[in-house]
Amino acid sequence: MNTARVEAFADGVFAIAATLLILNVDTQIADDVPDLGEKLLHIWPSYLAYAVSFVTIGIMWVNHHTVMSQLEKVDRRFLVATVGLLMCIAFVPFPTRLVAENIRGDNAEPAALAYGFTMVATAIMFNITWFYASRGKRLLRTDADPAVVSGLSRSYLPGPWIYLAATLIAFASPVASVVCFLTIALFYVVESSIFGSNDPAA
Amino acid sequence: MNTARVEAFADGVFAIAATLLILNVDTQIADDVPDLGEKLLHIWPSYLAYAVSFVTIGIMWVNHHTVMSQLEKVDRRFLVATVGLLMCIAFVPFPTRLVAENIRGDNAEPAALAYGFTMVATAIMFNITWFYASRGKRLLRTDADPAVVSGLSRSYLPGPWIYLAATLIAFASPVASVVCFLTIALFYVVESSIFGSNDPAA
Amino acid sequence: MNTARVEAFADGVFAIAATLLILNVDTQIADDVPDLGEKLLHIWPSYLAYAVSFVTIGIMWVNHHTVMSQLEKVDRRFLVATVGLLMCIAFVPFPTRLVAENIRGDNAEPAALAYGFTMVATAIMFNITWFYASRGKRLLRTDADPAVVSGLSRSYLPGPWIYLAATLIAFASPVASVVCFLTIALFYVVESSIFGSNDPAA
Amino acid sequence: MNTARVEAFADGVFAIAATLLILNVDTQIADDVPDLGEKLLHIWPSYLAYAVSFVTIGIMWVNHHTVMSQLEKVDRRFLVATVGLLMCIAFVPFPTRLVAENIRGDNAEPAALAYGFTMVATAIMFNITWFYASRGKRLLRTDADPAVVSGLSRSYLPGPWIYLAATLIAFASPVASVVCFLTIALFYVVESSIFGSNDPAA
Repeated sequence: MNTARVEAFADGVFAIAATLLILNVDTQIADDVPDLGEKLLHIWPSYLAYAVSFVTIGIMWVNHHTVMSQLEKVDRRFLVATVGLLMCIAFVPFPTRLVAENIRGDNAEPAALAYGFTMVATAIMFNITWFYASRGKRLLRTDADPAVVSGLSRSYLPGPWIYLAATLIAFASPVASVVCFLTIALFYVVESSIFGSNDPAA
Repeated sequence: MNTARVEAFADGVFAIAATLLILNVDTQIADDVPDLGEKLLHIWPSYLAYAVSFVTIGIMWVNHHTVMSQLEKVDRRFLVATVGLLMCIAFVPFPTRLVAENIRGDNAEPAALAYGFTMVATAIMFNITWFYASRGKRLLRTDADPAVVSGLSRSYLPGPWIYLAATLIAFASPVASVVCFLTIALFYVVESSIFGSNDPAA
Repeated sequence: MNTARVEAFADGVFAIAATLLILNVDTQIADDVPDLGEKLLHIWPSYLAYAVSFVTIGIMWVNHHTVMSQLEKVDRRFLVATVGLLMCIAFVPFPTRLVAENIRGDNAEPAALAYGFTMVATAIMFNITWFYASRGKRLLRTDADPAVVSGLSRSYLPGPWIYLAATLIAFASPVASVVCFLTIALFYVVESSIFGSNDPAA
Repeated sequence: MNTARVEAFADGVFAIAATLLILNVDTQIADDVPDLGEKLLHIWPSYLAYAVSFVTIGIMWVNHHTVMSQLEKVDRRFLVATVGLLMCIAFVPFPTRLVAENIRGDNAEPAALAYGFTMVATAIMFNITWFYASRGKRLLRTDADPAVVSGLSRSYLPGPWIYLAATLIAFASPVASVVCFLTIALFYVVESSIFGSNDPAA
């Protein structure tokens, strides 16, 4: 199988997972709401959660293509790892909803933990996928850009630890933990806005 | 990343957002309706809302490809802007349902406002995406068609203002506001039906 | 825009509309069913409706690609017609559910009518799309196969009338009407099984 | 129609069916759960069912591309068989939910049977699709790899029987049956992890 077919399937999962996020907002509004205006303002965490998860999945999609652009070919092990990675990404809408609905109540801690551990698992799968492909240049293109390759390795390695730290904060303060997730997403957007115009990996 | 991959992901989000609109109609019919025929006629705003939003997303899809057809390449900033644009488009099914369910009741105003501000945000993101790409010919193809480029710039700039005006009408009359949204969608269909056969941008 | 991009968007809508059909089956089973085995047998119309609509959408997908394979280019009018066609196809899961849930009860007639009129509208949009493209060879490839072109014209023209006839039968007998829809879908499968191996349009 | 278009549609159905699986987990959590943490631990079968079905659909996606990579062309019969195959795959989320929700209760047997028979039907459709294409080299590429072709034939033939055996075990013990489904999915992952790096079919 060539890399184009893997990208097509992955693009589908990324696009669907991101688009399904709106269902989380949708279920917040019952059929007969007495005061819709007030309700629409009240569920602001759902909009924020929608935006954060959409941007996070969008950034992961950009990263996934950066990885694929450096590969010459794929083998079955890589495909199995990719399925595992996509399984994590397709899971994201579920904890997103949990956080949106519970961050202001008594269940904020388990909601933040569910979101955080999903992100940790996703970051681990990104590392497995990338290092399986790049270790010993196993699947890399012969003309793979060394700067991009080492840049990816450098940026992926701390991912699970950063998300784990943000997750564990939930035991002390779920709100602080969620602010960290928000900050991580914002960081990628801001970083891309500042450095993105001459990024060779894009 | 080349433009083809961006189009593949965007096509996915456009197609899913449009297809999910049917779920809004679907939830209008409970499992046990005494008189289904009467109910199916009663929910006509849901069909209209389905059609208007489907056509609106369809027109946006056509526009997005017109933009992409003029680009030589993309960079990370453009990708981040695209993720923001798709985030707005994937949001459309939610306010569509609000309008369909509430336009005949006491909550018509907030429903129309929610739809309108979503459209304003989408139009703004279209402008950001396009002007980032075209300002100083940053990402344009060397053989980009000047007529198409200036045509896009001319047609995108008033978009947010037109939708903002239609939205603000909701404070006076939500129904009038929704009629404006309907008219804007119809305008694009009629305009394409009259002028569309020799449009170089298609 | 070239034909490949239209196909990518259309493929997305076809694939999503078909895959969403399973949600109709899913909602038939509540969270706490006393006797799941009995219930799973009882909802057999849902499986049949799933199969008929999935096959119908699948056949439409095959037909749509036969059309696209004969086109050299597309223009904006054709794109607007395609959006209208896809709007009908994405609508199919809704009346499918209505038929599945109501064919055995008092609401069988409006359910069958809803399904039938959706099919009539879809068949009309197929005709509009095809005859706009083929009239005067407007969008056809210079090497378009005359046999395929006239075959498409011949097979599309009676479509709306056949579905209209099957729909109107619902006023006399909704079950007979649904059996007609089933027979039309079966006809295409059997026809393809017998004649399909040397079909130049495939 | 060339093989690329079939793959695009199939990729869509595979990606959507896999991504919709998360909705099964989502519906397990009502809007107001007293103790979310306990509930999230209690629904562990839903996570397991999500993972097993996601991996199963992922493996089927890999297999489908292995099949397509050996084909020169497709005809209408093959397309009809493919629609039938995709109809089975898009069905998978439904029995997955049944198993996840009922494996610990009185309805475990019908749930396991529903899952099993869906898998049997899917395996049968894989055989029909493959043997229609490969019998007498009907649709094979002239340079199709004989090792891959005979490998596919060898690995597909026992599929329906293995799943049928695992399904029938449900009459004695639904849990044992589900453990078999889990083992089959795990087998493919482990097999790919051990032998996958030099697999010519990937």
